[in-house]
Amino acid sequence: MAGLLHRRLRLRTALRWMSPLSTASPPAVVRTLPPGFSSSLLQTPRPGSCGVRCRELHAGEERPTPSPTAAPERRPFSRVTPEDLAFFSKIIPGRTITDPDILEACNVDWLKSVRGFSEVLLRPQTTEEVSQILGYCNSRNLAVSPQGGNTGLVGGSVPVYDEIILSTVLMNNVINFDSVSGILSCQAGCVLESLSLYLEDRDYIMPLDLGAKGSCHIGGNVATNAGGLRLLRYGSLRGTVLGLEVVLADGRVLDCLATLRKDNTGYDLKQLFIGSEGTLGVITAVTILCPRKPKAVNVAFLGCESFEQLLQTFQRCRGMLGEILSAFEFLDRECMRLLNTHLKLANPITDCPFYIIIETSGSNPTHDEEKLHQFLEEAMTSSQVIDGTVATEEAKIKALWSLRERVTEALTHDGFTYKYDISLPVERIYQLVTDMREHLGNRAKSVVGYGHVGDGNLHLNITSPTKDPNLLASIEPFVYEWTARFQGSISAEHGLGLKKRNYIYYSKASLAVALMGNIKTMLDPKGILNPYKTLPDDLQ
Amino acid sequence: MAGLLHRRLRLRTALRWMSPLSTASPPAVVRTLPPGFSSSLLQTPRPGSCGVRCRELHAGEERPTPSPTAAPERRPFSRVTPEDLAFFSKIIPGRTITDPDILEACNVDWLKSVRGFSEVLLRPQTTEEVSQILGYCNSRNLAVSPQGGNTGLVGGSVPVYDEIILSTVLMNNVINFDSVSGILSCQAGCVLESLSLYLEDRDYIMPLDLGAKGSCHIGGNVATNAGGLRLLRYGSLRGTVLGLEVVLADGRVLDCLATLRKDNTGYDLKQLFIGSEGTLGVITAVTILCPRKPKAVNVAFLGCESFEQLLQTFQRCRGMLGEILSAFEFLDRECMRLLNTHLKLANPITDCPFYIIIETSGSNPTHDEEKLHQFLEEAMTSSQVIDGTVATEEAKIKALWSLRERVTEALTHDGFTYKYDISLPVERIYQLVTDMREHLGNRAKSVVGYGHVGDGNLHLNITSPTKDPNLLASIEPFVYEWTARFQGSISAEHGLGLKKRNYIYYSKASLAVALMGNIKTMLDPKGILNPYKTLPDDLQ
Repeated sequence: MAGLLHRRLRLRTALRWMSPLSTASPPAVVRTLPPGFSSSLLQTPRPGSCGVRCRELHAGEERPTPSPTAAPERRPFSRVTPEDLAFFSKIIPGRTITDPDILEACNVDWLKSVRGFSEVLLRPQTTEEVSQILGYCNSRNLAVSPQGGNTGLVGGSVPVYDEIILSTVLMNNVINFDSVSGILSCQAGCVLESLSLYLEDRDYIMPLDLGAKGSCHIGGNVATNAGGLRLLRYGSLRGTVLGLEVVLADGRVLDCLATLRKDNTGYDLKQLFIGSEGTLGVITAVTILCPRKPKAVNVAFLGCESFEQLLQTFQRCRGMLGEILSAFEFLDRECMRLLNTHLKLANPITDCPFYIIIETSGSNPTHDEEKLHQFLEEAMTSSQVIDGTVATEEAKIKALWSLRERVTEALTHDGFTYKYDISLPVERIYQLVTDMREHLGNRAKSVVGYGHVGDGNLHLNITSPTKDPNLLASIEPFVYEWTARFQGSISAEHGLGLKKRNYIYYSKASLAVALMGNIKTMLDPKGILNPYKTLPDDLQ
Repeated sequence: MAGLLHRRLRLRTALRWMSPLSTASPPAVVRTLPPGFSSSLLQTPRPGSCGVRCRELHAGEERPTPSPTAAPERRPFSRVTPEDLAFFSKIIPGRTITDPDILEACNVDWLKSVRGFSEVLLRPQTTEEVSQILGYCNSRNLAVSPQGGNTGLVGGSVPVYDEIILSTVLMNNVINFDSVSGILSCQAGCVLESLSLYLEDRDYIMPLDLGAKGSCHIGGNVATNAGGLRLLRYGSLRGTVLGLEVVLADGRVLDCLATLRKDNTGYDLKQLFIGSEGTLGVITAVTILCPRKPKAVNVAFLGCESFEQLLQTFQRCRGMLGEILSAFEFLDRECMRLLNTHLKLANPITDCPFYIIIETSGSNPTHDEEKLHQFLEEAMTSSQVIDGTVATEEAKIKALWSLRERVTEALTHDGFTYKYDISLPVERIYQLVTDMREHLGNRAKSVVGYGHVGDGNLHLNITSPTKDPNLLASIEPFVYEWTARFQGSISAEHGLGLKKRNYIYYSKASLAVALMGNIKTMLDPKGILNPYKTLPDDLQ
C-alpha cells in the first residue's frame, strides 16, 4: 500500500519527520502543573478540626462576585465524625483512608483546576460494601463524591467541600467475557486500557477509546457517557452498554446487569445512570457489547488548505470508505504549533491550515488498503488534500494518533487553558474558532480547534499566560451564546460537572432541566450523591 | 459472483424453486382474520350510551378466573361527554372521529387478539394540537391511548376500555433532512417505509427495518424501541435516535429534538420515552441518524443440519464478513413448512432442519462479493452449510427476505398463535424451541422458531386449531420460567403492552419495577397515558 501511494500520490513515508518522542504511547494522565497555571476554583486547603476543616469557598474574599463557575454554597450535609470513620473502618478495614497525601491526589482534578477538601477516601471492593456505605451515608446525611480514574475535565470527579470520596479503584475485576457474543461484564473500577488489553488477547476490542484510557475507569466512562475516538464507528455507550448494576443513594442495589442485546421489558432504567455523572447512583458493574478486533487498521494523516476542503474530504471519505471508516479527526495549524513547541512532536507532512486523521478498521487488509488508496487518489487528484502520509504498522499508527491525542497535553504547557467541548452541525464547527479568534483579537495567547469531525464535536481551547478574568469575560457567555444560536450543545462529551452546571440552559429547555431535577429528587431525595454537579444551582 | 458460486460451490440460482408469489413485496399488515382464530382478549363490543358503552371485561362471565393476560379492572377515569367532543371538534375540526366503522380498525390490533371500545378517535396534525388535547384530557381525567400504525404484537397500541385514541396518522411530515450529517427530523406519524423511500432518493437509509414497515409509524417504532432486521449492523434506536419532541400527560411540550450526535448536558431525558410504549408521553417528532445507502447488498439463503452448525456458521460469518454483515436471521424447518403450506412459498434450497439468511451491505460491490464468496466457500467446505443460494438483484433479494419476513403471516393461517419474543444467550435460543416441543408433545399443532440470531432474539410461536386454555396453561409460565432460568428477556423487542405486562418480574427485579412505577407517577400522576400497559397491575 505504501508503495502504491508513493508512486502515485507523492505521500510520504509515515513518520519521516517525527521526533523519537512521537513514537511513544500517548500519556494517559499528566499530573504536573502546567507552566503559568492558575485556576478559578483551585484553593489551598486550610487545616482545622474534622468537623470544620473544609473551606466554604463561596464566602472567600478572593471571589467577591461569584460567577456561574464559582463553587456553590455548601449544603447542610453532616460532617464526618470519628464515629463515622469507625463505622467505615469496620465495613472496609484498611480501606478507609484519611492520609492527607493520598487524599491530595483525589481532591484535585487532573487539570488541577478544582480542589475539594475531603478528609475521607473509601475504597470498597464489592457492591455489598458500596451498598452498606451509601445506606449509612444516606441515613447520616453525609455527602458522597463517587470517583473513578479522576480524569474528567469539568470538575465532576472531585469533591467540592468535604464530601466523602467513594473510589472504585479496587473494584477492578472482570466478571465474565462471552467470546461468542462479545459481551463483557466487569466491575466499574476496571481501567479502560486494561479492559482493552484483556479483550485484544481474545480477539475483541472495547467499543470506546479515549486519550485518558490508561487511567479512566469504565464506570466513570459510563457515568459520563464518554465519547472518544471510536464513536463514529461503534456508536455511543447508550447503544453498547447492555447492563448496569447501580447502588442507589439509599444503598439499595439496582440490578440491571443484563447481558442481552435486546430487552424491552419496561423502561430502560440503566439509561438514567449513563451520563448522570454519579448524581443519581453509583455504578458498580457494567456489561458492554464489544466489537471484534479488526484484522486491519490503517491511519492516514492528511493536510487541507481550508476547512471547506476538509469537509469535502469528509464527505468523500464517508462515501468511499463507508463501513471501514472508524475515525475522522482534525486539528488546526495552531494545534500543530503547540505540539511542535511544547512536546517537540514534528509535523510529518507539509505545513497546512488543517490536518485530518483518518482511521480505517476492517476485516480484510487487501480490501481496506484498496479502498483507502482509491479514496486518497481521488482526494489528492481533486486537490481537496494537499499532502499526506499513511501508516499501517502499530507503532507508526500510534505515533500519528499521538498528534491528535496529545493536543490536550500540549495545551497545558501553553498556559492557563479555557476548555470548551461543543457539538454543532458539522459544517459550523470551525466557524466558532474563527469567530472566537476575531472576537478575542490579541487578548488570548492561543485559540485552537481540534476534535471529532465525524461526530460534529469541536474542542475549542483558549490559552493565556496566566488566569485572566477579563479574557474569561470575553469568552463567556460569547461561546455559549454562539453555540445556542446554532442549536449546538455546550458539552458534547465532557459532561457538565461542577464547571458547566450553570450553563445547562444554553442547551436544554427549562422544562427539561426541571424534569432532571424531579428525577434527582426521586432517586436521591437528600441530594447526597455528587452534590453541586450536573444540575444548575437553582435546582440543587 | 453468481457464476463463481455456481462453479465452485454448487449453490443454486436464487429463487429457482420459488413460486411467483414469492417475488412480491412482503405485506405490511394483514388484517384478515386467520382461520381458526380466537382470542383470549378479543371481545365483541356492546352497544350502549356514550358514557357506559365500554365493556368491563374483567367482570365478564367468559373469564371467571382472570389470568395474568386478562384485562385489568377499569380505572376510574372520566367518560367522554358531548361537551368533551365539542371541545375536541373545536381544536381539530373534522378530525374528531366517532364513526364506528373507522373506530373499529383502531380498536382492534392487527393480530385481532385484543379489542378496545373507544368511541373517539382524534387525529391531530401538529404538536400544539396534541398539547391542547392532552392538557384537556389530563384536566378532565380522560384516559388516552396513543396510536401509531397499530402494528404492535402485545396489545399495546389499542385501547382496553374507552380510552380516547390519539392517532399520529396525520402527523406525517418530514421536517428536515441534512444530507451532510444524515440526520432526519420528522413528525411521529411518518410511515417507516415512506421515510425509507424518501431517504433512498437521497442516498441514505433508515437505521431500522421491519416487516411492518408499510404501516408502522416512526413514532411508534421509537415508543416501542423497535428492533427489527438491521439492529445487528446499525445498533438500537437508543443510539440512533438523536432527539425527540414529546408531549407530556399534562400537555406540556418537552423539546429534546436535538440534531446532534453528541450531547452530554444533563440527563438524557429522551431515553425515558424510547420503549415506554406511550405510557410516559406522546412522541410527536423524532430526529434520527441515518446511515449511507450501501452501494452493494447481497443476500445468501443457506441450510444447516443442526443449530450447532448454524452457530458455527454465525461465528465464521462474523469473522469473515465483519463490517459488511448487516443481518443474520434464521428459521427452522417447521417455519418453511408453514410458508409452503399456507403461502405457497417454495423452498429455494434442499430441505434442511435450519435455514439462515445472511445479508451483507457495503460500499464496494467487488470487495463484498469476494468476502461473501470466501465465507461461503469455507462454510461449504467445512460442511457447516449443506446447501445455499445467493441473490444480488433487488427483486430476488426481496423474495429471499420474504421467506423470513412472512413467517408471521404464515402462522396466522396455521391457527390460533401463541407468540413469544425471547432474548437469550445466543447458544441457548433454539434449546427453548426443542424443550417446548418436548414439553407440549402433541398438544400443539405447530411449535416453530425463527428470529434474529445476531441479536440472540428468538421468536417462538405455537399454534393450535383454536384457542386452547389447556395448551396455554402448558406453555405459560413454562416459557417464562425457562427464560428467567437463563437470564433471558421475556420481551426482546415487542414490548410488554397489555399482554405481557404482568410477566415483567420474570425479567426485571422488583426494585427496578418499583422505580418504573415512580417514573410513571412523576410524569403522568393521573395515569391517563396508555393505562393498563407496560407496568404490571400491582403498579397501575
